[in-house]
Amino acid sequence: MKLLPFLEIIRKELEKVEELIFSEGGLSYKPLAQSVENILRSGGKRLRPALTILASKLYPADEEKPILAAAAMELLHSATLIHDDFIDQSPTRRNVPTLNSLWPPAAVVLAGDHLFAKAASLAAMTGSPRVVRIFANALKTICDGEIRQLFGAFSWPQDQSDYYYRIYAKTSSLFEASAEIGAILSAAPEEAIQSLKEYGRNLGNAFQIVDDVLDFIGDEKVLGKPAGSDLRQGIVTLPVLYFVKSGGNEELVVKVLKARPEDKEKLLEELLREIRESPAIELSLSEAKAFAEKAQSAIAPLPESPYRSALISLADFAVGRNY
Amino acid sequence: MKLLPFLEIIRKELEKVEELIFSEGGLSYKPLAQSVENILRSGGKRLRPALTILASKLYPADEEKPILAAAAMELLHSATLIHDDFIDQSPTRRNVPTLNSLWPPAAVVLAGDHLFAKAASLAAMTGSPRVVRIFANALKTICDGEIRQLFGAFSWPQDQSDYYYRIYAKTSSLFEASAEIGAILSAAPEEAIQSLKEYGRNLGNAFQIVDDVLDFIGDEKVLGKPAGSDLRQGIVTLPVLYFVKSGGNEELVVKVLKARPEDKEKLLEELLREIRESPAIELSLSEAKAFAEKAQSAIAPLPESPYRSALISLADFAVGRNY
Repeated sequence: MKLLPFLEIIRKELEKVEELIFSEGGLSYKPLAQSVENILRSGGKRLRPALTILASKLYPADEEKPILAAAAMELLHSATLIHDDFIDQSPTRRNVPTLNSLWPPAAVVLAGDHLFAKAASLAAMTGSPRVVRIFANALKTICDGEIRQLFGAFSWPQDQSDYYYRIYAKTSSLFEASAEIGAILSAAPEEAIQSLKEYGRNLGNAFQIVDDVLDFIGDEKVLGKPAGSDLRQGIVTLPVLYFVKSGGNEELVVKVLKARPEDKEKLLEELLREIRESPAIELSLSEAKAFAEKAQSAIAPLPESPYRSALISLADFAVGRNY
Repeated sequence: MKLLPFLEIIRKELEKVEELIFSEGGLSYKPLAQSVENILRSGGKRLRPALTILASKLYPADEEKPILAAAAMELLHSATLIHDDFIDQSPTRRNVPTLNSLWPPAAVVLAGDHLFAKAASLAAMTGSPRVVRIFANALKTICDGEIRQLFGAFSWPQDQSDYYYRIYAKTSSLFEASAEIGAILSAAPEEAIQSLKEYGRNLGNAFQIVDDVLDFIGDEKVLGKPAGSDLRQGIVTLPVLYFVKSGGNEELVVKVLKARPEDKEKLLEELLREIRESPAIELSLSEAKAFAEKAQSAIAPLPESPYRSALISLADFAVGRNY
């Protein structure tokens, strides 16, 4: 199992999480079960389960429960990706064919539902109703965010508060829940739980902003998707907002959002170039860095340990990566 | 609120369940939230929540927790119906337009997911990890059954064990879980919990067989869907199996299942008539009655009370109804 270097200290735990993720899920139609397994194997970075495990290690904790919760969070994440790719009709993710490119809509929806159920079952096995409640609320928030994104797509003007609600719903809520759940399953005092929750939320913001920046400047081969995917789907992200705010060509943005299919790619190409050459990329990245620092400050008062150091490194990684 | 007469003794509880079902679910896009609410209002019989409440009343129980669990079961049921109608592309249910007839696929899938999350959140609020585990496992079973049904549709031969697996997954698992969860949230001893669970499973079987019979002999206006809906979708139910077993025209069954769209309705019409005139309907109904009696026997040893009597009546209703 390939891990980010600073996660080596929890290799044993993350390997147990993997076992749970691939454990018999009860999907009796094997060809579909095999496709779901391929997707689960296709190399996410396992950041959410890592977050749960690390957050559980700052104070004494039961050994097994955080592993169950970590697997639940990864499966919840995978389930939402399956439904998202179906909704966006994405052909691939991480260079692997999506479920919706292989199976009919009905199978895709049900396979996602089945993973939700498996995730909820693992969350319940922690024996903590508070953990299950946070798990369920994270799912609620994710769905609500997706729905808002769906009906808000292609609209203009949009402002930063729309954007921040959407990235909280889409990403930060699950990072926040992952950290909070880990802390709850340890002997962390309530104040420390809140600090770890705050760490997770800010880390999620940093992470998603960088993702949104990479959609403009990342290597298409490494990312496994073409540049400008968000704008192509009508989704306005922080670099676009900063582009306009710093005097960029707002008219071109509107043109891209309202373009007829046959004109879209050419206009999009032009806008991507202008955004890349504008201050928008740097402005967005420094906002991501500010969130990473906020995350780090939130856990600064917690007891020093190699696990806390790993959380600090994770925040640095979130903003330093190119994939 | 219109209730079946034998459910009047739990009117107060079922009214509280209604309140929870319609309580703020956190869906911030109001037009979609309104459509979901219309569907929730469109007059299910609320049998699953009634089952949870009644099962919690045979022994002393907390007042609030069974209400939370009952609302969770109804919302879980509604969420699966939303995804099912999408999968089957059904235009109406109970004479009300389905969500998929009003909204794009993405919104339908997400609205269903959001209801799952709300249901899970209510289940977690019971504070019982065992309840949440049963809830999650019921969802797993439902999804697995739907997937099997999807890939098993239009195939022939099929046997009764396929059929019983499918109706367990589709209906009885949730009836079973509803009764079991109610019992768990009371002071029922383990043996009584198992009896109520058995009651629920058998009631579910009886209920689904009658549903499948009504698809042949029911009043289309009352049911809100055309006769023969199952066969039209390639789904083989008990009356079809009994029709063939009792010497009916197997070739015609195969013809209907394999028919080209343009020939289908005529062949189906013919098969429906033959099945209605065969012993298959009576044979299926007596099997349903046997399950209802099994359900009643399962709870016969439990303490006598008006709630136990209501459960007995519920089993009679399941097989005596025409809607």
